[in-house]
Amino acid sequence: MSHNTFGHLFRVTTFGESHGVAIGCVVDGCPPRIPLTVADIQRELDRRRPGQSKFVTQRREPDEVKIVSGVFTDPQGGEQVTTGTPIGLLIENVDARSKDYDAISELYRPGHADFTYDIKYGIRDPRGSGRASARETAMRVAAGAIARKVVPGMTVRGALVQMGEIDIDRSRWDWDEVARNPFFCPDAEAAKKMENYLDGIRKSGSSVGAVIEVVAENVPPGLGAPIYAKLDADIAAALMSINAVKGVEIGTGFASARLSGEANADEMRPGNAGRPEFTSNNAGGILGGISTGAPVVARFAVKPTSSILTPRQSINRQGAPAEVSTKGRHDPCVGIRAVPVGEAMLACVIADHFLRHRGQVGETANWPFPPQKK
Amino acid sequence: MSHNTFGHLFRVTTFGESHGVAIGCVVDGCPPRIPLTVADIQRELDRRRPGQSKFVTQRREPDEVKIVSGVFTDPQGGEQVTTGTPIGLLIENVDARSKDYDAISELYRPGHADFTYDIKYGIRDPRGSGRASARETAMRVAAGAIARKVVPGMTVRGALVQMGEIDIDRSRWDWDEVARNPFFCPDAEAAKKMENYLDGIRKSGSSVGAVIEVVAENVPPGLGAPIYAKLDADIAAALMSINAVKGVEIGTGFASARLSGEANADEMRPGNAGRPEFTSNNAGGILGGISTGAPVVARFAVKPTSSILTPRQSINRQGAPAEVSTKGRHDPCVGIRAVPVGEAMLACVIADHFLRHRGQVGETANWPFPPQKK
Amino acid sequence: MSHNTFGHLFRVTTFGESHGVAIGCVVDGCPPRIPLTVADIQRELDRRRPGQSKFVTQRREPDEVKIVSGVFTDPQGGEQVTTGTPIGLLIENVDARSKDYDAISELYRPGHADFTYDIKYGIRDPRGSGRASARETAMRVAAGAIARKVVPGMTVRGALVQMGEIDIDRSRWDWDEVARNPFFCPDAEAAKKMENYLDGIRKSGSSVGAVIEVVAENVPPGLGAPIYAKLDADIAAALMSINAVKGVEIGTGFASARLSGEANADEMRPGNAGRPEFTSNNAGGILGGISTGAPVVARFAVKPTSSILTPRQSINRQGAPAEVSTKGRHDPCVGIRAVPVGEAMLACVIADHFLRHRGQVGETANWPFPPQKK
Amino acid sequence: MSHNTFGHLFRVTTFGESHGVAIGCVVDGCPPRIPLTVADIQRELDRRRPGQSKFVTQRREPDEVKIVSGVFTDPQGGEQVTTGTPIGLLIENVDARSKDYDAISELYRPGHADFTYDIKYGIRDPRGSGRASARETAMRVAAGAIARKVVPGMTVRGALVQMGEIDIDRSRWDWDEVARNPFFCPDAEAAKKMENYLDGIRKSGSSVGAVIEVVAENVPPGLGAPIYAKLDADIAAALMSINAVKGVEIGTGFASARLSGEANADEMRPGNAGRPEFTSNNAGGILGGISTGAPVVARFAVKPTSSILTPRQSINRQGAPAEVSTKGRHDPCVGIRAVPVGEAMLACVIADHFLRHRGQVGETANWPFPPQKK
Repeated sequence: MSHNTFGHLFRVTTFGESHGVAIGCVVDGCPPRIPLTVADIQRELDRRRPGQSKFVTQRREPDEVKIVSGVFTDPQGGEQVTTGTPIGLLIENVDARSKDYDAISELYRPGHADFTYDIKYGIRDPRGSGRASARETAMRVAAGAIARKVVPGMTVRGALVQMGEIDIDRSRWDWDEVARNPFFCPDAEAAKKMENYLDGIRKSGSSVGAVIEVVAENVPPGLGAPIYAKLDADIAAALMSINAVKGVEIGTGFASARLSGEANADEMRPGNAGRPEFTSNNAGGILGGISTGAPVVARFAVKPTSSILTPRQSINRQGAPAEVSTKGRHDPCVGIRAVPVGEAMLACVIADHFLRHRGQVGETANWPFPPQKK
Repeated sequence: MSHNTFGHLFRVTTFGESHGVAIGCVVDGCPPRIPLTVADIQRELDRRRPGQSKFVTQRREPDEVKIVSGVFTDPQGGEQVTTGTPIGLLIENVDARSKDYDAISELYRPGHADFTYDIKYGIRDPRGSGRASARETAMRVAAGAIARKVVPGMTVRGALVQMGEIDIDRSRWDWDEVARNPFFCPDAEAAKKMENYLDGIRKSGSSVGAVIEVVAENVPPGLGAPIYAKLDADIAAALMSINAVKGVEIGTGFASARLSGEANADEMRPGNAGRPEFTSNNAGGILGGISTGAPVVARFAVKPTSSILTPRQSINRQGAPAEVSTKGRHDPCVGIRAVPVGEAMLACVIADHFLRHRGQVGETANWPFPPQKK
Repeated sequence: MSHNTFGHLFRVTTFGESHGVAIGCVVDGCPPRIPLTVADIQRELDRRRPGQSKFVTQRREPDEVKIVSGVFTDPQGGEQVTTGTPIGLLIENVDARSKDYDAISELYRPGHADFTYDIKYGIRDPRGSGRASARETAMRVAAGAIARKVVPGMTVRGALVQMGEIDIDRSRWDWDEVARNPFFCPDAEAAKKMENYLDGIRKSGSSVGAVIEVVAENVPPGLGAPIYAKLDADIAAALMSINAVKGVEIGTGFASARLSGEANADEMRPGNAGRPEFTSNNAGGILGGISTGAPVVARFAVKPTSSILTPRQSINRQGAPAEVSTKGRHDPCVGIRAVPVGEAMLACVIADHFLRHRGQVGETANWPFPPQKK
Repeated sequence: MSHNTFGHLFRVTTFGESHGVAIGCVVDGCPPRIPLTVADIQRELDRRRPGQSKFVTQRREPDEVKIVSGVFTDPQGGEQVTTGTPIGLLIENVDARSKDYDAISELYRPGHADFTYDIKYGIRDPRGSGRASARETAMRVAAGAIARKVVPGMTVRGALVQMGEIDIDRSRWDWDEVARNPFFCPDAEAAKKMENYLDGIRKSGSSVGAVIEVVAENVPPGLGAPIYAKLDADIAAALMSINAVKGVEIGTGFASARLSGEANADEMRPGNAGRPEFTSNNAGGILGGISTGAPVVARFAVKPTSSILTPRQSINRQGAPAEVSTKGRHDPCVGIRAVPVGEAMLACVIADHFLRHRGQVGETANWPFPPQKK
């Protein structure tokens, strides 16, 4: 990850500010001849789109994506497929009318990147937080829609497992429930509680954080690599790069620090078709930085947005004390919309490692077991 | 981070297996004319060295580092300084005698990378866990000793803040205490408890995890960058790449998910010499991926090692059931020695971003405040 | 350079096919607060634009560039400046009407990339050569317009020094002449000859190659680095990546292989203001991969386009023999329009190394001379 | 290529100065289970080794390479194979005795990197030219020995095709002759002439340049990629990064600029087993940056070394005029020993692209022909 790019073989570069002409991305290195239509991408974008319930920002962002390059009609099949050249994606900003940003451009909102952009660059685009806006994450979701198609058989899903002080009960986990409530919550009862809870937060002009869990299934074993190309290291960076994320963990994560070695180690046994099987998954599908074949499980913490009604002490661009409060429409829990973003980042990282592994070792996986002599 | 390399401008590449001829690293991109002696590096290595108390592995690893290249006697000063060319470092393995590894090389120890290396590469060096050994982290500490000298005025310190079920009391935090006990623990009372606790763990052949906190002070504001070059994203990857780490958090981290926006946002006020000042540091010194000037604070969770006396179910290389237990000397809490490693990784990431920021924006920081027109 | 991206700190990514919706690029890592308008970029694009004389393709490509992101009105100055975030550029394709490409999509034109794209990807976009079209070079010119502004005082110019069998006479070199003829030729007499010569080539439906020289003046000494980050290595890659380029040389280049050491080495003497001065520049401004402060001089050879009227033997997609000849409008000498492209690539490489050097060593150049102790 | 590293998936990092403790390299990303012994590497090193005839430097460099990591005895086969982890290589410097370098360290030899290292870094290791020494190329040859084994069936050979004013006669090209004369010359008659010619040069204390041709056969079609990952762009950078190289060309190269489109384009016809065949190879095996399956042919020009007996005007470190002449043993034609270095660089670049192609597209080449639907 560097600059506005991440990934080595499957590589994503994004550009664009919240209220500029457009936001866009370039997905480079995608394998050729993968069927890809606008609908494939739009479907995922619609899951992240604002304005779908009263609990997320009411901004009008239709987020209509355009594929600018990198696909062509397969002469042998008639369907639209990737060509192996860079896939350019573009979403024009429809709501980019010029507003008076003079006030906000002179103030540093606590907990925002206003101050750090200014101190770094000596200038920033203050309109809708410019480049620091969560709007950029739309392009991650778009790239993720492509990444999902790169690894055969892989599925990536996400769910909100904590909102502020409300935790889910994991014994009630139901993946089907995720699509039924506005919170991507897998526990119907918790979702009910969250509804009242967040309504109160919203009305009081406050905000809360959240924890998201993302899970990738059918990830081939062997992805990732020692030592600085560990799969979990890249997942950590990818999730931490999402706006407002302050923590990332894999498998049992921080809780494993309290466990004994006996409780934490995942035992193995012969499974179906001679495949080794893990009897637990504290490792979150990754050992020594390399995927085990068990589901890859990661969680990340999203802080509460600092866009709140209560006035906060801050300073202005001249260094003088100033009071800041947020007016207008905002997300009381930005973590909600981070669910599809987290899925997308996980999908992109795994797709990249899938190609990297194939590059170094080839398609002949050392599976089924045991590894055969070459 | 890719392959066995991390960093963009300040770049570290490591090589070597636990029981091979030697381990080594190349620190490339270091600024020239920085005073650097073997002693500077050895001092840090000695903090990580095994065999210093009964609580860490008793293996004999003198870890004597040799500087192979990249330094020269300054003709203008007489002291040894970096030349700007790659600094090669080497530690020869003194204890690399050939042992019978046939047994272990045919078994997959639960919670180890044995299985994943085999499934990925179809071969692995089983001697002392080969490349997956914690021995590799010695080179990180060596590189970190150089990184510390790259950012003027910066100090990086670390402490163990949780061992298994024992948490420290942060109100008793004393940095001086860290060097006084064998656990890098900043709380003398907790350290006392840990001694008995870990002794019990050790005697029973079990193991426990730990949480480490690393703090960088005097980090210039403005380091890091949107969107995929965020300082916290690189810190997350760097810490997650340490052996046995399963979670990383910045500032208030996972706990911020339970907070309200009011409680979490760090307010600002005019400070000394016109410098803005934060009245709290939930952000851990990073906003929008860019350093604020406040201390950079990160924590990471180390799982309990799976090298335990209790036999565990596993499989062998042929896929048949097998029972595995660890004999010999091992760390009951590998998290202890991770403290200097975590410091080193934090130092390397910040040094890299210091150079990257200087590359893009130049030495004229936008500080003191407010930013001046160029 | 990798995928569709080049540069480390000043980084350019392009996307788009010749007849797709649009072509675009992302210039990432540009320093902030550099004044930049559409006109700055359009001016350079207009020099490369087709249809400006009968000697270049008559295709209508207005090449109107749009800045999509990365600039903002400086609150302190009122002019539009870069913000340090990625600069997205877009040129919509106006002439992208659907044509019948069935014939050409089934044939491999000799000397084109038709076959290699197909053999690599199993699919290609045949419309106007798709991604392999020279149209992509418009985005290089756009990126180069930005790069020119990154290095203070630097000027980059280019000239055509050979067209087919016609060489220029270097004693008549006049930079002002370059803008006066349609060939970017610095020798008025040679330009006159080229006019008749190329008219004959054009009428006969044939084509010729060319050699271009690009020169960067006021390049700070010290840019580039050992060993694989040599300035000339990056220049070689950048120029060789231009369509149809088959050779690159620096300074005296291939001719230096015939010289003696006495004739080739550039002697030095004290110059103005204590600056060392070279009495010749066989090195082309680069020694040991690092700029000397003398002008950086590079030349590259462009092969004659294979789009010619004379039928050539080839095969079709099914492997059967086929005869291919080109119909329609084409450049008899594609090398002409390569002049601004070569300038742009040289500017981008130097801008990147300018930032990389500043990153490692800082702005305090070791100049004036001699280097001062830090 | 950046810093002291090149390659993306097959990646080489070198370190070490001419007269330091040792030189070394790390070959990272090599596929696992490739048989590799010290002898494989030593064989290639011995071809580059100095002191083998009176025409190359008489320095004693036994260049005994040690494999420090990354190989292990295959439990299934008993032979030593790569493990997929970084291969560390080391050559200790036997002749690194401390000499008095004060004189040379204060002078800038014309045509050397003395001045540019100083102006860049403010310091340099003057012993044997330090990092700028041709000694570093030994590690390239070592890495190349590994790269040769990565691409199944590929052979890479090189030959000296011009020495100073003496060209070979290509009609007398005999690959077997290359090993029979001390110049790697494929034309026995030319080699004879070179012997007398170079003896005269040597005795007069002068030097001459050379042109080397390197050829890779059995390169799979489809390697390389648009636009900035072109195979020829990477070859150009790799060859230009060799010490003293001032020009690189592919296939017909600079000469193609004089050709007509008719003469230059390589026609195609159906060949053996349905494989398309090129009836000529002006393209040097690369079209649109992608390998065609024909031999990859590149040439590079090496300038005459500036280490000559005749005194030359220069300046000293204080900027005052000084006269410089070289004493001691040096190569009258450094181009000779560049032959194995050029081969190695070509092998490394192709190995890297072989893995990169496999990563993106997979092992199922689109060959035999025509491409099948996936």
